[in-house]
Amino acid sequence: MAVGHAMDALDAGGPAGGPGDSAGSGGRAAGASRARLFAAQVLRGQAQVTFLPNAATGALFAVALFAAGWEYGVYGLAGTAVGTATARLLGVDGDRVAAGLEGFNACLTALCFAVFLGAAHLSTALLAVAGCVVVTVVTAAAVRLLGVWGLPSLTLPYCLLATAVTIAAPGFGRLWHTGQGVAALPLPASGTTAVEPAGLARGFLAGFAQIFFMPQWYVGALLLLGLLVAGPRTAAVACLGNAVGVATAWALGAPAARIADGTMGYNAVLVALALCGVFLPARAATLAYALVGAAAATALGPAVSALFAPSGGHAFTWPFVLTTVVFLAGAKSFPRLTGSGTEAGAGH
Amino acid sequence: MAVGHAMDALDAGGPAGGPGDSAGSGGRAAGASRARLFAAQVLRGQAQVTFLPNAATGALFAVALFAAGWEYGVYGLAGTAVGTATARLLGVDGDRVAAGLEGFNACLTALCFAVFLGAAHLSTALLAVAGCVVVTVVTAAAVRLLGVWGLPSLTLPYCLLATAVTIAAPGFGRLWHTGQGVAALPLPASGTTAVEPAGLARGFLAGFAQIFFMPQWYVGALLLLGLLVAGPRTAAVACLGNAVGVATAWALGAPAARIADGTMGYNAVLVALALCGVFLPARAATLAYALVGAAAATALGPAVSALFAPSGGHAFTWPFVLTTVVFLAGAKSFPRLTGSGTEAGAGH
Amino acid sequence: MAVGHAMDALDAGGPAGGPGDSAGSGGRAAGASRARLFAAQVLRGQAQVTFLPNAATGALFAVALFAAGWEYGVYGLAGTAVGTATARLLGVDGDRVAAGLEGFNACLTALCFAVFLGAAHLSTALLAVAGCVVVTVVTAAAVRLLGVWGLPSLTLPYCLLATAVTIAAPGFGRLWHTGQGVAALPLPASGTTAVEPAGLARGFLAGFAQIFFMPQWYVGALLLLGLLVAGPRTAAVACLGNAVGVATAWALGAPAARIADGTMGYNAVLVALALCGVFLPARAATLAYALVGAAAATALGPAVSALFAPSGGHAFTWPFVLTTVVFLAGAKSFPRLTGSGTEAGAGH
Repeated sequence: MAVGHAMDALDAGGPAGGPGDSAGSGGRAAGASRARLFAAQVLRGQAQVTFLPNAATGALFAVALFAAGWEYGVYGLAGTAVGTATARLLGVDGDRVAAGLEGFNACLTALCFAVFLGAAHLSTALLAVAGCVVVTVVTAAAVRLLGVWGLPSLTLPYCLLATAVTIAAPGFGRLWHTGQGVAALPLPASGTTAVEPAGLARGFLAGFAQIFFMPQWYVGALLLLGLLVAGPRTAAVACLGNAVGVATAWALGAPAARIADGTMGYNAVLVALALCGVFLPARAATLAYALVGAAAATALGPAVSALFAPSGGHAFTWPFVLTTVVFLAGAKSFPRLTGSGTEAGAGH
Repeated sequence: MAVGHAMDALDAGGPAGGPGDSAGSGGRAAGASRARLFAAQVLRGQAQVTFLPNAATGALFAVALFAAGWEYGVYGLAGTAVGTATARLLGVDGDRVAAGLEGFNACLTALCFAVFLGAAHLSTALLAVAGCVVVTVVTAAAVRLLGVWGLPSLTLPYCLLATAVTIAAPGFGRLWHTGQGVAALPLPASGTTAVEPAGLARGFLAGFAQIFFMPQWYVGALLLLGLLVAGPRTAAVACLGNAVGVATAWALGAPAARIADGTMGYNAVLVALALCGVFLPARAATLAYALVGAAAATALGPAVSALFAPSGGHAFTWPFVLTTVVFLAGAKSFPRLTGSGTEAGAGH
Repeated sequence: MAVGHAMDALDAGGPAGGPGDSAGSGGRAAGASRARLFAAQVLRGQAQVTFLPNAATGALFAVALFAAGWEYGVYGLAGTAVGTATARLLGVDGDRVAAGLEGFNACLTALCFAVFLGAAHLSTALLAVAGCVVVTVVTAAAVRLLGVWGLPSLTLPYCLLATAVTIAAPGFGRLWHTGQGVAALPLPASGTTAVEPAGLARGFLAGFAQIFFMPQWYVGALLLLGLLVAGPRTAAVACLGNAVGVATAWALGAPAARIADGTMGYNAVLVALALCGVFLPARAATLAYALVGAAAATALGPAVSALFAPSGGHAFTWPFVLTTVVFLAGAKSFPRLTGSGTEAGAGH
């Protein structure tokens, strides 16, 4: 199931340089067609945050970001656009660009800067543009490095850049406007572990929203709607992953506050999607494998947070990336998992 | 010298699915044969902690763990069994399972949880089972990732999982029963560096025991006996590695207490074994190379401890893994080391 | 432009084992010829710190180190000599040795120990010799590991060893003579960001000197002279990279003191050299790409410093290594960058 080749209805004009460009019906029509093509690539880029080359899903994701705050909607769309445009400028393979694969890391990078450095500062906006250019280079490098094992690059490029910049930012006076230190030694969990039903429901929905750093349950509900548009199976796998994440966190004794704000679910959602239906075929065996992965990523979360705490860093989607890379690389040695000795591969 | 193919006397029935299964002499006999076969795989899995597919060595290692505490013996054997069974269930290559290569990382993972999270807690036992399942996936991934360079995965899977879980554990109320923080900034060495002969002897034997996190000299003596059973050359290389580790630590000025409790010797033992006789042929040149590696791993130890200190982590066998990977990868470019341009390779 | 094959005028006798050895004109002449050959390899090893297999440049670099302090000159030359001799002893490929590729990581390793552990201590000198032997093994490993992607190993071996030893040193009483701890949580930047013209000029020259850990502007001036000897284009690229580094640091609001002591320029110099003229062809497009890389490495600097702060580590040339590896790996996917679909490759 190669993500890179599943095009959707919006893509009437083919990839960059296709029929839409060769039409002779005047510059304005060609320009409008090219703009529509680029818009579709940007929307697919938004949707690729959850591995879906689906412009309708991407449009709903954009709505969700605007619901969280208009500036987040703008940062997300502009970031995806800058990343996609940079890739086109540098001559990256047209299929990747058309599928939105050059947009989602830039989308998350720009959003991350907006959330952690302050969306209103001009410095943040300029840095976000620069970050979206650089993340395109990092993406090309990650694709090539991981390609040796036939592994996808996932959100690794964004994780690398977001970690580097958020850790470096306090060292730069014009980026860091609070003047406050963020470095600390990690402390043992404290606070109640008893989750109330309302907190559980809120945490479940917020788990989707935290993929984009947002804590609001309604943002998560809109994102879930976007997954549903892409297909009921996709939404079901995402919900199961989220539920396993929340259940694992509860069983291990995570603080109730961490469950209620969704931070215990977002990595599990992404792992479940990646391992059941995107990079491995959707079957009963891979679903079980994906849910084990979702639980593992949830347990890994506080480890990543603790590791980065002394330099003031954040976990981002590192738990998802690390778990998925390990489970995908491992899957190739488990013939009973994928059936009849097929090698698992993907072009994400 | 491919570890994966040196079978020992206990393996009368061949690997899983071999003659022992096809015999028509009734279900009970076949069942007993299968159980005996599995038991041999588990014992070999214990022995593979020191790269030896030798059931008698594994049995002595199990005795040593029971000598340290019956719960450690149980955790070690059960961990190896769960890891081996998971690998069989997932359809991992039968040769690897038969040689015990799917057991030793699980053995160390279960033991590590027992030592650092408390062996008596039900939560620890359940987590150890889950950990032994997940470490099998991590092993498959590590084998595939390192396979690109023809490098063995060593105890890397266990190091990854043990580091992740011990760092994450304080963040989970139901795993962490002391409620105390473990994060700290590393301090310069203090205390005397003058080692007494008794401390030196105790530290030498404890160096073997620390491979399994145990500080008792008599546990180390039993483990050394296990190495001796596998062959006098193996025991001699291990002793030389240990001695070089202790000597290096003394020369660099390590605190006497660190030498006496064996923490300065266990990585050196493993490096010496790996580089002289297991993954490189046993020759005078590789012995010298292995002892340089043993010294390097000893110097690396406090660096790994200091790196993980702020998140409360431990060095585990990271110094051994990192040093051995570097020295094995480097060895392929040193024709004078391995003789006549042979490429060093192994199937561990 | 393979660095490994650009020999210079001093190499009259060919690589080790060439005509210089087979001449029958008496032992003394052959010995002198062999010594001259080795001296040329050592000088080229000094110059390879900036990727130049040029003995004249290396001689000027040695002069610069002696200008900073005679002990630094000695450590640098002796380190390069030990690394080169170790590689010859182990039978490393003669082309690599002749080009100086086995010397520069040892040079930096020895210098780093001199600067951070105290050049006057006997312990430092002995450790430097051991470090230069081990770094040769690390270099062989790095060449092999990165060779899978056709990537050069740059100063990665030195960074690994320098990081390990400087973090481990406070744990060893005979290496660490101050008794003071160096671990700290990173703090936000403080102090003025207003750079005066004199500070800017001093910082620009010191940026070259910081490649060798030196803060003096005149050391930097001598190093720049060495680059000029290798060719005006090389010097121009290095100056542009340095200027972009300083400008980026100023724009992001780095403390003026960090700009004036050159720590904001040295990674940018190395990135610019590597990406424009050494591992990628020198063209307008690669120059622009290299300067983006120089800016990225400058921003990455404080992140690496903050990451290592809790264990008392240093950034060394990690920002250069990480940025260059990413930009070189990425470059292979950007056909418009290198022109007509040529794959970028190098033998450094």
